[in-house]
Amino acid sequence: MRLASELVMAPISPNTGSVGPIEPQTADFSEPLRLASGQSFGPYQLVYETYGRLNQDRSNAVLICHALNASHHVAGSRPDDPNAIGWWDNMVGPGKPVDTNRFFVIGVNNLGSCFGSTGPASVNPMNGRPYGADFPVITVDDWVHAQARLADQLGIAQFAAVMGGSLGGMQAMQWSIAYPTRLRHAVVIASTPRLSAQNIAFNEVARRAIVSDPDFHGGHYYEKNTVPRTGLSVARMIGHITYLSDDDMAEKFGRQLRGSDQYRFGFDVEFEIESYLRHQGEKFSTYFDANTYLLITRALDYFDPAKDFSGDLSQALSVVQCSSLLVSFTTDWRFPPERSREIVEALLTQRKPVTYAEIDAPHGHDAFLMNDPRYHRLIGAYFDRIGQEAGV
Amino acid sequence: MRLASELVMAPISPNTGSVGPIEPQTADFSEPLRLASGQSFGPYQLVYETYGRLNQDRSNAVLICHALNASHHVAGSRPDDPNAIGWWDNMVGPGKPVDTNRFFVIGVNNLGSCFGSTGPASVNPMNGRPYGADFPVITVDDWVHAQARLADQLGIAQFAAVMGGSLGGMQAMQWSIAYPTRLRHAVVIASTPRLSAQNIAFNEVARRAIVSDPDFHGGHYYEKNTVPRTGLSVARMIGHITYLSDDDMAEKFGRQLRGSDQYRFGFDVEFEIESYLRHQGEKFSTYFDANTYLLITRALDYFDPAKDFSGDLSQALSVVQCSSLLVSFTTDWRFPPERSREIVEALLTQRKPVTYAEIDAPHGHDAFLMNDPRYHRLIGAYFDRIGQEAGV
Repeated sequence: MRLASELVMAPISPNTGSVGPIEPQTADFSEPLRLASGQSFGPYQLVYETYGRLNQDRSNAVLICHALNASHHVAGSRPDDPNAIGWWDNMVGPGKPVDTNRFFVIGVNNLGSCFGSTGPASVNPMNGRPYGADFPVITVDDWVHAQARLADQLGIAQFAAVMGGSLGGMQAMQWSIAYPTRLRHAVVIASTPRLSAQNIAFNEVARRAIVSDPDFHGGHYYEKNTVPRTGLSVARMIGHITYLSDDDMAEKFGRQLRGSDQYRFGFDVEFEIESYLRHQGEKFSTYFDANTYLLITRALDYFDPAKDFSGDLSQALSVVQCSSLLVSFTTDWRFPPERSREIVEALLTQRKPVTYAEIDAPHGHDAFLMNDPRYHRLIGAYFDRIGQEAGV
Repeated sequence: MRLASELVMAPISPNTGSVGPIEPQTADFSEPLRLASGQSFGPYQLVYETYGRLNQDRSNAVLICHALNASHHVAGSRPDDPNAIGWWDNMVGPGKPVDTNRFFVIGVNNLGSCFGSTGPASVNPMNGRPYGADFPVITVDDWVHAQARLADQLGIAQFAAVMGGSLGGMQAMQWSIAYPTRLRHAVVIASTPRLSAQNIAFNEVARRAIVSDPDFHGGHYYEKNTVPRTGLSVARMIGHITYLSDDDMAEKFGRQLRGSDQYRFGFDVEFEIESYLRHQGEKFSTYFDANTYLLITRALDYFDPAKDFSGDLSQALSVVQCSSLLVSFTTDWRFPPERSREIVEALLTQRKPVTYAEIDAPHGHDAFLMNDPRYHRLIGAYFDRIGQEAGV
């Protein structure tokens, strides 16, 4: 925070409240879902968590959409593991920016993921074997339709807000296009209306690393009892570089050597940044599914609501009925502020209500997950307004 | 070129002259070279090419240092292949910015490379097998010492200029530190005084891709008759992304689909950028050596002349006696202009003569290899001055 000094003078309430241990729930969908690819898929299940209480008017529901490597476990801990803290626990909880004393918050694991919802590792009822490479290609729009069915099951006709960062922000935006009457606010953070060639390039290299790992077996590695761990680890390392800003990396690691101040003239870990990245890659490869990584990066590549409107984003957004909050971060070079501004301008062209904030934060793309007081105060203030509108 | 309109009005001489077919030469060094790592290495050989004629005063010699994936074949073609054009042929030749009618230009392949000089694929006289992983780690300083020995053999006591882009620029800079009296000009283009954490991170991911390819065999793949082609290909794809600017990629490829305007919902090549990157990776893996890739990226990581001066670059440059020309490119995000400015400021602190130009070019790091008229006019003008000083 470059303006930290200013903020010290204006204390904010500490985000210490937790929703506590949370038991995930499962929703079953027997009717197949028609996908953007033309395929039908089903039956399937989605796992989800909820925090807070749905009010009588059913006017206080907030849907949180996850990004590449996250899940339905947004806030709180797990009954069996107090250290398994949700990925956006600093954002969602009692007294937090998305205040669970006021809102009924839903976190849902997307179709194709690897944290409980039906995905490539699930058993294909057609042949009794894991889907693997036979799992269909899924788009952001498909996820939104699957989430809408979950909302139906939960009896939520309209969300107070749909919210997400990065790929999660794409889903929030897609909600405002696909189901204009089913949300009052779209909160789109650190996102983009479409990947650039450079974004796609990074995804493609990551995918090449995975599919060329001999343990990948064309995506059917489950049956071979192998995991393309090395490829997945390299993929994660590539991704990780794009999540951090150059400056942030320089500040955290710089050229610091590991355990010495002299070069060792070899190829083992020499610099701290190498150690950090290897660790991140290896850790990721123990819990994430390689086929899911392929699917989700492809969903990122494909997202482009303007595509059916000859590239005119404002046309794509002409159906929007909700208000939108767009937030970007100055040092995010994955989805830099210009991309958010493109969405803002398209909404303004259509005279849709939109609020935009560009946060001066050093943490690159990952800033959307960080506990930045200015950012959290902004989201808190916006949700306070949403709460007032919802009568909570 | 954003100012292309301006340049149209000031025509420059077309860079059409070629030095023609060039036969590489070989220099043998029987005395071992003492390396920065403390090891001694030798005997070894270096291959090199020369263009133009050394004048009687021996005052017109220019050394061109290559970057990661290039070689001694700087200009002209090959006697057996008129299409094998040197990597800096647009820069070096009769009537070109480095005018071979005036200068005697030397291109040398560095130790550890894979284009003819002794490297990991060469036979280790100790055991009759290729060095492979036993080839020592080499630094920029080591290369400079090896180049100085070649200059001795060629009877060149002092270069009119030592010149290079990127890693080649590091060598030019290191020449001015290691052999202050042996060059009159250092021409350092698109370079940096040290890699950032992000730069090292990209190198490390590339190396992980190589060493985790099962065909790598711990670096001793020659004996196994395999080549870690997939790993090397992924490494090259990562590198390639960092050589191009985001804007340039957007302009060249954007989100253009390959052979269709509809998504195919699969993992085969869908976007043009994917096809381009795969092609680049595959092509590279057919001619470049994986061990050399490891060695050269490590030399990049290690380069940091300020390291022995508690990080004070100006102290490291206090010994410099030559004049320096520094050139950077606005859209180069690998080694952005700030890095060159750091060198300029350190030289100015030491009151060394330095010229600096920041070229507004769209091509990212690769701009140093491109035929940009403003850039070439600048280099041409600078070498004209060098030539006048040298009496040629």
